[in-house]
Amino acid sequence: MPTPSHVEKHFTAGEVVRDIVIGMSDGLTVPFALAAGLSGAIDNSAVVVTAGLAEVAAGSIAMGLGGYLAARSDAEHYASEREREVREVAEKPGAEVAEVTAIFEAYGLSREASAPVVAALTSSPKVWVDFMMRFELGLEEPDPRRAGRSALTIAGSYVAGGLVPLAPYLLIGSARTALGVSTGTTLVALAVFGFVKGHFTGSRPWRSALQTVLIGSLAAGAAFAIARAIA
Amino acid sequence: MPTPSHVEKHFTAGEVVRDIVIGMSDGLTVPFALAAGLSGAIDNSAVVVTAGLAEVAAGSIAMGLGGYLAARSDAEHYASEREREVREVAEKPGAEVAEVTAIFEAYGLSREASAPVVAALTSSPKVWVDFMMRFELGLEEPDPRRAGRSALTIAGSYVAGGLVPLAPYLLIGSARTALGVSTGTTLVALAVFGFVKGHFTGSRPWRSALQTVLIGSLAAGAAFAIARAIA
Repeated sequence: MPTPSHVEKHFTAGEVVRDIVIGMSDGLTVPFALAAGLSGAIDNSAVVVTAGLAEVAAGSIAMGLGGYLAARSDAEHYASEREREVREVAEKPGAEVAEVTAIFEAYGLSREASAPVVAALTSSPKVWVDFMMRFELGLEEPDPRRAGRSALTIAGSYVAGGLVPLAPYLLIGSARTALGVSTGTTLVALAVFGFVKGHFTGSRPWRSALQTVLIGSLAAGAAFAIARAIA
Repeated sequence: MPTPSHVEKHFTAGEVVRDIVIGMSDGLTVPFALAAGLSGAIDNSAVVVTAGLAEVAAGSIAMGLGGYLAARSDAEHYASEREREVREVAEKPGAEVAEVTAIFEAYGLSREASAPVVAALTSSPKVWVDFMMRFELGLEEPDPRRAGRSALTIAGSYVAGGLVPLAPYLLIGSARTALGVSTGTTLVALAVFGFVKGHFTGSRPWRSALQTVLIGSLAAGAAFAIARAIA
Protein backbone atom coordinates (compact mmCIF):
# COMPACT_ATOMS: atom_id res chain seq x y z
CA MET A 1 0.00 0.00 0.00
CA PRO A 2 1.54 3.31 -1.03
CA THR A 3 2.10 5.55 1.98
CA PRO A 4 4.93 7.90 2.90
CA SER A 5 7.67 5.66 4.29
CA HIS A 6 8.08 7.46 7.64
CA VAL A 7 4.48 6.62 8.58
CA GLU A 8 5.16 2.90 8.26
CA LYS A 9 8.36 3.13 10.29
CA HIS A 10 6.71 5.03 13.10
CA PHE A 11 3.93 2.44 13.11
CA THR A 12 6.16 -0.66 13.39
CA ALA A 13 8.44 0.66 16.14
CA GLY A 14 5.32 1.75 17.99
CA GLU A 15 3.90 -1.76 17.91
CA VAL A 16 6.89 -3.43 19.57
CA VAL A 17 7.02 -0.74 22.26
CA ARG A 18 3.27 -1.09 22.72
CA ASP A 19 3.58 -4.87 23.17
CA ILE A 20 6.38 -4.46 25.74
CA VAL A 21 4.30 -1.85 27.56
CA ILE A 22 1.19 -4.10 27.55
CA GLY A 23 3.09 -7.09 28.93
CA MET A 24 5.35 -5.34 31.39
CA SER A 25 2.86 -2.96 32.96
CA ASP A 26 0.56 -5.83 33.90
CA GLY A 27 3.49 -8.15 34.68
CA LEU A 28 4.98 -5.69 37.17
CA THR A 29 1.61 -4.76 38.67
CA VAL A 30 -0.59 -7.85 39.04
CA PRO A 31 1.90 -10.39 40.52
CA PHE A 32 3.17 -7.62 42.82
CA ALA A 33 -0.37 -6.83 44.01
CA LEU A 34 -1.29 -10.50 44.37
CA ALA A 35 1.83 -11.25 46.40
CA ALA A 36 1.26 -8.19 48.57
CA GLY A 37 -2.38 -9.16 49.09
CA LEU A 38 -1.55 -12.73 50.05
CA SER A 39 1.21 -11.58 52.43
CA GLY A 40 -1.46 -9.60 54.26
CA ALA A 41 -3.46 -12.77 54.81
CA ILE A 42 -0.90 -15.60 55.02
CA ASP A 43 2.63 -15.15 56.40
CA ASN A 44 4.15 -17.91 54.28
CA SER A 45 6.45 -17.10 51.37
CA ALA A 46 5.98 -20.58 49.86
CA VAL A 47 2.25 -19.96 49.33
CA VAL A 48 2.96 -16.49 47.93
CA VAL A 49 5.60 -17.84 45.52
CA THR A 50 3.31 -20.69 44.38
CA ALA A 51 0.42 -18.31 43.76
CA GLY A 52 2.72 -15.68 42.21
CA LEU A 53 4.39 -18.03 39.74
CA ALA A 54 1.05 -19.65 38.87
CA GLU A 55 -0.26 -16.15 38.15
CA VAL A 56 2.78 -15.27 36.01
CA ALA A 57 2.30 -18.47 33.98
CA ALA A 58 -1.43 -17.85 33.56
CA GLY A 59 -1.11 -14.12 32.89
CA SER A 60 1.71 -14.39 30.37
CA ILE A 61 -0.06 -17.13 28.41
CA ALA A 62 -3.44 -15.38 28.52
CA MET A 63 -2.00 -12.02 27.47
CA GLY A 64 0.44 -13.47 24.92
CA LEU A 65 -2.19 -15.58 23.18
CA GLY A 66 -4.67 -12.73 23.51
CA GLY A 67 -2.19 -10.50 21.67
CA TYR A 68 -1.68 -13.23 19.06
CA LEU A 69 -5.41 -13.44 18.38
CA ALA A 70 -5.79 -9.65 18.34
CA ALA A 71 -3.07 -9.32 15.70
CA ARG A 72 -4.51 -12.21 13.69
CA SER A 73 -7.97 -10.71 13.82
CA ASP A 74 -6.61 -7.31 12.70
CA ALA A 75 -5.07 -9.07 9.69
CA GLU A 76 -8.31 -10.95 8.94
CA HIS A 77 -10.39 -7.81 9.33
CA TYR A 78 -8.13 -6.01 6.86
CA ALA A 79 -8.28 -8.90 4.38
CA SER A 80 -12.06 -9.21 4.55
CA GLU A 81 -12.65 -5.45 4.23
CA ARG A 82 -10.25 -5.36 1.30
CA GLU A 83 -12.08 -8.22 -0.40
CA ARG A 84 -15.36 -6.36 0.08
CA GLU A 85 -13.89 -3.18 -1.46
CA VAL A 86 -12.50 -5.15 -4.42
CA ARG A 87 -15.96 -6.64 -4.99
CA GLU A 88 -17.72 -3.30 -4.67
CA VAL A 89 -15.32 -1.59 -7.06
CA ALA A 90 -15.95 -4.36 -9.62
CA GLU A 91 -19.72 -4.69 -9.13
CA LYS A 92 -20.92 -1.20 -8.19
CA PRO A 93 -18.31 1.15 -9.68
CA GLY A 94 -20.86 3.98 -9.88
CA ALA A 95 -21.59 3.92 -6.15
CA GLU A 96 -17.87 3.73 -5.35
CA VAL A 97 -17.06 6.70 -7.60
CA ALA A 98 -19.76 8.61 -5.69
CA GLU A 99 -18.10 7.59 -2.38
CA VAL A 100 -14.70 8.92 -3.51
CA THR A 101 -16.36 12.17 -4.60
CA ALA A 102 -18.19 12.37 -1.24
CA ILE A 103 -14.88 11.97 0.62
CA PHE A 104 -13.47 15.03 -1.14
CA GLU A 105 -16.76 16.91 -0.70
CA ALA A 106 -16.45 16.38 3.05
CA TYR A 107 -13.22 18.41 2.77
CA GLY A 108 -15.08 21.21 0.98
CA LEU A 109 -14.08 20.30 -2.59
CA SER A 110 -16.71 20.76 -5.27
CA ARG A 111 -17.58 17.85 -7.57
CA GLU A 112 -15.92 19.74 -10.44
CA ALA A 113 -12.67 20.38 -8.56
CA SER A 114 -12.22 16.77 -7.50
CA ALA A 115 -13.33 15.22 -10.81
CA PRO A 116 -9.82 14.81 -12.37
CA VAL A 117 -8.40 13.23 -9.20
CA VAL A 118 -11.44 10.96 -8.82
CA ALA A 119 -11.03 9.90 -12.44
CA ALA A 120 -7.32 9.15 -11.95
CA LEU A 121 -7.85 7.31 -8.66
CA THR A 122 -10.60 5.14 -10.08
CA SER A 123 -8.76 4.31 -13.30
CA SER A 124 -6.83 1.39 -11.70
CA PRO A 125 -8.75 -1.03 -9.44
CA LYS A 126 -5.69 -1.60 -7.21
CA VAL A 127 -5.02 2.10 -6.60
CA TRP A 128 -8.74 2.65 -6.09
CA VAL A 129 -9.00 -0.10 -3.45
CA ASP A 130 -5.77 1.10 -1.74
CA PHE A 131 -7.28 4.58 -1.51
CA MET A 132 -10.62 3.37 -0.11
CA MET A 133 -8.90 1.13 2.49
CA ARG A 134 -6.84 3.98 3.82
CA PHE A 135 -9.25 6.82 3.36
CA GLU A 136 -12.80 5.50 3.69
CA LEU A 137 -12.02 2.83 6.28
CA GLY A 138 -8.86 4.24 7.91
CA LEU A 139 -7.14 0.83 7.78
CA GLU A 140 -3.42 0.10 7.38
CA GLU A 141 -2.22 -3.21 5.97
CA PRO A 142 -0.96 -5.26 8.96
CA ASP A 143 2.41 -6.97 8.93
CA PRO A 144 1.75 -10.73 8.50
CA ARG A 145 4.59 -11.72 10.88
CA ARG A 146 3.21 -9.51 13.61
CA ALA A 147 0.98 -12.03 15.44
CA GLY A 148 3.72 -14.44 16.56
CA ARG A 149 6.17 -11.68 17.40
CA SER A 150 3.50 -9.81 19.33
CA ALA A 151 2.62 -12.92 21.40
CA LEU A 152 6.26 -13.58 22.36
CA THR A 153 6.98 -9.93 23.16
CA ILE A 154 3.92 -9.57 25.41
CA ALA A 155 4.44 -12.91 27.20
CA GLY A 156 8.19 -12.35 27.67
CA SER A 157 7.64 -8.84 29.04
CA TYR A 158 5.00 -10.15 31.43
CA VAL A 159 7.36 -12.83 32.79
CA ALA A 160 10.25 -10.37 33.10
CA GLY A 161 8.00 -7.92 34.92
CA GLY A 162 6.45 -10.57 37.17
CA LEU A 163 9.78 -11.95 38.41
CA VAL A 164 10.75 -8.58 39.93
CA PRO A 165 8.13 -8.53 42.73
CA LEU A 166 8.38 -12.32 43.30
CA ALA A 167 12.16 -12.54 43.68
CA PRO A 168 12.21 -11.36 47.35
CA TYR A 169 9.66 -14.05 48.31
CA LEU A 170 11.92 -16.67 46.71
CA LEU A 171 14.80 -15.55 48.92
CA ILE A 172 13.09 -14.63 52.21
CA GLY A 173 10.99 -17.17 54.18
CA SER A 174 8.78 -14.68 56.03
CA ALA A 175 6.24 -13.24 53.62
CA ARG A 176 5.84 -10.09 55.77
CA THR A 177 9.58 -9.34 55.57
CA ALA A 178 9.68 -10.19 51.87
CA LEU A 179 6.68 -7.87 51.33
CA GLY A 180 8.70 -4.82 52.35
CA VAL A 181 11.60 -5.70 50.06
CA SER A 182 9.23 -6.59 47.21
CA THR A 183 7.31 -3.33 47.61
CA GLY A 184 10.46 -1.21 47.58
CA THR A 185 12.00 -3.02 44.61
CA THR A 186 8.79 -3.05 42.59
CA LEU A 187 7.94 0.61 43.17
CA VAL A 188 11.42 1.54 41.91
CA ALA A 189 10.98 -0.81 38.94
CA LEU A 190 7.54 0.68 38.19
CA ALA A 191 8.97 4.19 38.31
CA VAL A 192 11.86 3.29 35.97
CA PHE A 193 9.48 1.47 33.62
CA GLY A 194 7.02 4.38 33.64
CA PHE A 195 9.81 6.86 32.97
CA VAL A 196 11.20 4.88 30.02
CA LYS A 197 7.67 4.23 28.73
CA GLY A 198 6.92 7.96 28.86
CA HIS A 199 10.11 8.65 26.94
CA PHE A 200 9.15 6.18 24.18
CA THR A 201 5.47 7.03 23.92
CA GLY A 202 5.98 10.78 23.91
CA SER A 203 4.33 11.67 27.23
CA ARG A 204 6.21 13.48 29.97
CA PRO A 205 8.53 10.85 31.58
CA TRP A 206 8.05 11.96 35.22
CA ARG A 207 4.30 12.09 34.94
CA SER A 208 4.33 8.65 33.32
CA ALA A 209 6.54 7.31 36.15
CA LEU A 210 4.13 8.72 38.72
CA GLN A 211 1.18 7.10 36.95
CA THR A 212 2.67 3.58 36.82
CA VAL A 213 3.70 3.82 40.50
CA LEU A 214 0.19 4.99 41.38
CA ILE A 215 -1.53 2.18 39.47
CA GLY A 216 0.76 -0.43 41.06
CA SER A 217 0.13 0.99 44.53
CA LEU A 218 -3.64 1.17 44.07
CA ALA A 219 -3.80 -2.39 42.74
CA ALA A 220 -1.60 -3.71 45.55
CA GLY A 221 -3.51 -1.74 48.19
CA ALA A 222 -6.86 -3.08 46.96
CA ALA A 223 -5.55 -6.66 46.81
CA PHE A 224 -4.07 -6.32 50.32
CA ALA A 225 -7.32 -4.90 51.73
CA ILE A 226 -9.47 -7.59 50.16
CA ALA A 227 -7.20 -10.46 51.23
CA ARG A 228 -7.05 -9.06 54.80
CA ALA A 229 -10.84 -8.71 54.90
CA ILE A 230 -11.40 -12.34 53.89
CA ALA A 231 -8.66 -14.13 55.84
CA MET B 1 -13.32 16.06 11.39
CA PRO B 2 -15.19 15.33 8.20
CA THR B 3 -15.49 11.62 7.56
CA PRO B 4 -18.36 9.52 6.23
CA SER B 5 -20.67 8.99 9.25
CA HIS B 6 -20.79 5.17 9.08
CA VAL B 7 -17.05 4.99 9.75
CA GLU B 8 -17.42 6.89 13.04
CA LYS B 9 -20.34 4.70 14.17
CA HIS B 10 -18.49 1.48 13.44
CA PHE B 11 -15.52 2.83 15.38
CA THR B 12 -17.43 3.72 18.60
CA ALA B 13 -19.43 0.49 18.88
CA GLY B 14 -16.18 -1.38 18.24
CA GLU B 15 -14.48 0.36 21.16
CA VAL B 16 -17.03 -0.68 23.80
CA VAL B 17 -17.02 -4.25 22.51
CA ARG B 18 -13.23 -4.19 22.48
CA ASP B 19 -13.11 -2.99 26.10
CA ILE B 20 -15.53 -5.73 27.22
CA VAL B 21 -13.47 -8.29 25.32
CA ILE B 22 -10.20 -7.03 26.87
CA GLY B 23 -11.58 -7.17 30.42
CA MET B 24 -13.61 -10.34 30.21
CA SER B 25 -11.16 -12.54 28.33
CA ASP B 26 -8.47 -11.94 30.97
CA GLY B 27 -11.04 -11.92 33.80
CA LEU B 28 -12.34 -15.35 32.85
CA THR B 29 -8.90 -16.78 32.15
CA VAL B 30 -6.37 -15.59 34.74
CA PRO B 31 -8.37 -16.04 38.01
CA PHE B 32 -9.53 -19.43 36.67
CA ALA B 33 -5.97 -20.49 35.92
CA LEU B 34 -4.64 -19.15 39.23
CA ALA B 35 -7.36 -20.95 41.22
CA ALA B 36 -6.76 -24.17 39.29
CA GLY B 37 -3.01 -23.88 39.82
CA LEU B 38 -3.33 -23.27 43.56
CA SER B 39 -5.81 -26.17 43.92
CA GLY B 40 -3.12 -28.42 42.50
CA ALA B 41 -0.75 -27.34 45.29
CA ILE B 42 -2.99 -26.56 48.29
CA ASP B 43 -6.32 -28.33 48.96
CA ASN B 44 -7.85 -25.38 50.80
CA SER B 45 -10.61 -23.32 49.21
CA ALA B 46 -10.06 -20.42 51.63
CA VAL B 47 -6.51 -19.84 50.31
CA VAL B 48 -7.74 -20.17 46.72
CA VAL B 49 -10.56 -17.67 47.34
CA THR B 50 -8.21 -15.21 49.07
CA ALA B 51 -5.70 -15.38 46.24
CA GLY B 52 -8.42 -15.35 43.60
CA LEU B 53 -10.22 -12.27 44.91
CA ALA B 54 -6.91 -10.48 45.50
CA GLU B 55 -6.06 -11.23 41.87
CA VAL B 56 -9.44 -9.97 40.64
CA ALA B 57 -8.98 -6.72 42.61
CA ALA B 58 -5.43 -6.27 41.30
CA GLY B 59 -6.21 -7.31 37.74
CA SER B 60 -9.33 -5.18 37.35
CA ILE B 61 -7.60 -2.08 38.74
CA ALA B 62 -4.43 -2.62 36.71
CA MET B 63 -6.31 -3.26 33.47
CA GLY B 64 -8.95 -0.58 34.05
CA LEU B 65 -6.41 2.15 34.85
CA GLY B 66 -4.20 0.84 32.06
CA GLY B 67 -7.13 1.32 29.68
CA TYR B 68 -7.75 4.79 31.09
CA LEU B 69 -4.15 5.82 30.45
CA ALA B 70 -4.14 4.26 26.99
CA ALA B 71 -7.25 6.25 25.98
CA ARG B 72 -5.84 9.42 27.52
CA SER B 73 -2.54 8.98 25.75
CA ASP B 74 -4.36 8.38 22.41
CA ALA B 75 -6.14 11.70 22.94
CA GLU B 76 -2.91 13.47 23.86
CA HIS B 77 -1.07 11.94 20.92
CA TYR B 78 -3.82 13.18 18.59
CA ALA B 79 -3.76 16.67 20.10
CA SER B 80 0.03 17.00 19.94
CA GLU B 81 0.23 15.68 16.36
CA ARG B 82 -2.58 18.06 15.37
CA GLU B 83 -0.74 20.98 16.96
CA ARG B 84 2.39 20.03 15.05
CA GLU B 85 0.48 19.90 11.74
CA VAL B 86 -1.15 23.28 12.45
CA ARG B 87 2.32 24.74 13.09
CA GLU B 88 3.84 23.14 9.99
CA VAL B 89 1.00 24.34 7.77
CA ALA B 90 1.49 27.89 9.08
CA GLU B 91 5.31 27.92 9.08
CA LYS B 92 6.33 25.67 6.21
CA PRO B 93 3.36 25.74 3.80
CA GLY B 94 5.63 24.94 0.84
CA ALA B 95 6.85 21.69 2.37
CA GLU B 96 3.31 20.73 3.36
CA VAL B 97 1.95 21.36 -0.13
CA ALA B 98 4.71 19.06 -1.39
CA GLU B 99 3.60 16.42 1.12
CA VAL B 100 -0.01 16.56 -0.07
CA THR B 101 1.20 16.25 -3.68
CA ALA B 102 3.42 13.31 -2.68
CA ILE B 103 0.45 11.54 -1.10
CA PHE B 104 -1.43 11.66 -4.40
CA GLU B 105 1.72 10.74 -6.34
CA ALA B 106 1.94 7.57 -4.23
CA TYR B 107 -1.43 6.65 -5.77
CA GLY B 108 -0.08 7.20 -9.26
CA LEU B 109 -1.45 10.72 -9.82
CA SER B 110 0.74 13.16 -11.73
CA ARG B 111 1.53 16.55 -10.22
CA GLU B 112 -0.67 18.18 -12.87
CA ALA B 113 -3.67 15.94 -12.23
CA SER B 114 -3.66 16.50 -8.47
CA ALA B 115 -2.88 20.25 -8.63
CA PRO B 116 -6.52 21.50 -8.43
CA VAL B 117 -7.35 19.23 -5.49
CA VAL B 118 -4.12 20.14 -3.72
CA ALA B 119 -4.93 23.82 -4.23
CA ALA B 120 -8.47 23.39 -2.86
CA LEU B 121 -7.35 21.28 0.13
CA THR B 122 -4.64 23.72 1.09
CA SER B 123 -6.83 26.82 0.74
CA SER B 124 -8.26 26.48 4.28
CA PRO B 125 -5.86 25.66 7.16
CA LYS B 126 -8.54 23.66 9.02
CA VAL B 127 -9.42 21.44 6.05
CA TRP B 128 -5.72 21.06 5.28
CA VAL B 129 -4.88 19.91 8.81
CA ASP B 130 -7.93 17.58 8.90
CA PHE B 131 -6.71 16.01 5.68
CA MET B 132 -3.12 15.54 6.91
CA MET B 133 -4.28 14.04 10.22
CA ARG B 134 -6.37 11.42 8.52
CA PHE B 135 -4.31 10.84 5.43
CA GLU B 136 -0.67 11.41 6.27
CA LEU B 137 -0.84 10.16 9.87
CA GLY B 138 -3.88 7.85 9.72
CA LEU B 139 -5.26 9.27 12.99
CA GLU B 140 -8.94 9.63 14.00
CA GLU B 141 -10.02 12.21 16.54
CA PRO B 142 -10.64 10.30 19.80
CA ASP B 143 -13.83 10.78 21.83
CA PRO B 144 -12.90 12.87 24.93
CA ARG B 145 -15.23 10.89 27.24
CA ARG B 146 -13.70 7.63 26.19
CA ALA B 147 -11.01 7.27 28.89
CA GLY B 148 -13.30 7.04 31.92
CA ARG B 149 -15.86 4.88 30.16
CA SER B 150 -13.12 2.60 28.91
CA ALA B 151 -11.67 2.16 32.42
CA LEU B 152 -15.04 1.24 33.96
CA THR B 153 -15.97 -1.12 31.12
CA ILE B 154 -12.67 -3.00 31.29
CA ALA B 155 -12.62 -3.23 35.11
CA GLY B 156 -16.30 -4.25 35.36
CA SER B 157 -15.87 -6.92 32.70
CA TYR B 158 -12.79 -8.26 34.47
CA VAL B 159 -14.66 -8.55 37.81
CA ALA B 160 -17.71 -10.15 36.14
CA GLY B 161 -15.47 -12.65 34.36
CA GLY B 162 -13.35 -13.37 37.45
CA LEU B 163 -16.30 -14.22 39.72
CA VAL B 164 -17.34 -17.12 37.46
CA PRO B 165 -14.36 -19.41 38.18
CA LEU B 166 -14.16 -18.32 41.85
CA ALA B 167 -17.83 -18.94 42.78
CA PRO B 168 -17.41 -22.73 43.24
CA TYR B 169 -14.51 -22.20 45.68
CA LEU B 170 -16.74 -19.84 47.70
CA LEU B 171 -19.35 -22.60 48.05
CA ILE B 172 -17.25 -25.79 48.34
CA GLY B 173 -14.67 -26.27 51.12
CA SER B 174 -12.44 -28.78 49.34
CA ALA B 175 -10.44 -26.99 46.66
CA ARG B 176 -10.01 -30.24 44.66
CA THR B 177 -13.80 -30.73 44.46
CA ALA B 178 -14.36 -27.06 43.68
CA LEU B 179 -11.72 -27.29 40.94
CA GLY B 180 -13.85 -29.72 38.95
CA VAL B 181 -16.96 -27.53 39.21
CA SER B 182 -14.96 -24.38 38.47
CA THR B 183 -13.31 -25.96 35.41
CA GLY B 184 -16.63 -27.14 33.99
CA THR B 185 -18.40 -23.82 34.60
CA THR B 186 -15.53 -21.70 33.31
CA LEU B 187 -14.95 -23.72 30.13
CA VAL B 188 -18.65 -23.32 29.29
CA ALA B 189 -18.46 -19.59 30.10
CA LEU B 190 -15.30 -19.23 27.95
CA ALA B 191 -17.04 -21.01 25.06
CA VAL B 192 -20.15 -18.78 25.31
CA PHE B 193 -17.98 -15.65 25.63
CA GLY B 194 -15.83 -16.70 22.67
CA PHE B 195 -18.91 -17.42 20.57
CA VAL B 196 -20.53 -14.05 21.33
CA LYS B 197 -17.19 -12.28 20.86
CA GLY B 198 -16.77 -13.94 17.45
CA HIS B 199 -20.26 -12.79 16.50
CA PHE B 200 -19.49 -9.17 17.42
CA THR B 201 -15.99 -8.97 16.01
CA GLY B 202 -16.85 -10.62 12.72
CA SER B 203 -14.81 -13.83 13.05
CA ARG B 204 -16.44 -17.25 12.86
CA PRO B 205 -18.23 -17.78 16.23
CA TRP B 206 -17.35 -21.47 16.68
CA ARG B 207 -13.71 -20.93 15.89
CA SER B 208 -13.63 -17.99 18.30
CA ALA B 209 -15.26 -20.17 21.01
CA LEU B 210 -12.64 -22.86 20.45
CA GLN B 211 -9.85 -20.28 20.73
CA THR B 212 -10.99 -18.81 24.06
CA VAL B 213 -11.49 -22.32 25.52
CA LEU B 214 -8.02 -23.28 24.31
CA ILE B 215 -6.34 -20.20 25.79
CA GLY B 216 -8.11 -20.72 29.13
CA SER B 217 -7.11 -24.39 29.20
CA LEU B 218 -3.49 -23.70 28.30
CA ALA B 219 -3.17 -20.95 30.92
CA ALA B 220 -4.82 -23.11 33.60
CA GLY B 221 -2.74 -26.14 32.62
CA ALA B 222 0.51 -24.17 32.82
CA ALA B 223 -0.45 -22.61 36.16
CA PHE B 224 -1.43 -26.04 37.53
CA ALA B 225 1.85 -27.63 36.35
CA ILE B 226 3.98 -24.83 37.81
CA ALA B 227 2.19 -24.77 41.16
CA ARG B 228 2.44 -28.59 41.39
CA ALA B 229 6.15 -28.50 40.56
CA ILE B 230 6.89 -25.98 43.34
CA ALA B 231 4.65 -27.25 46.14
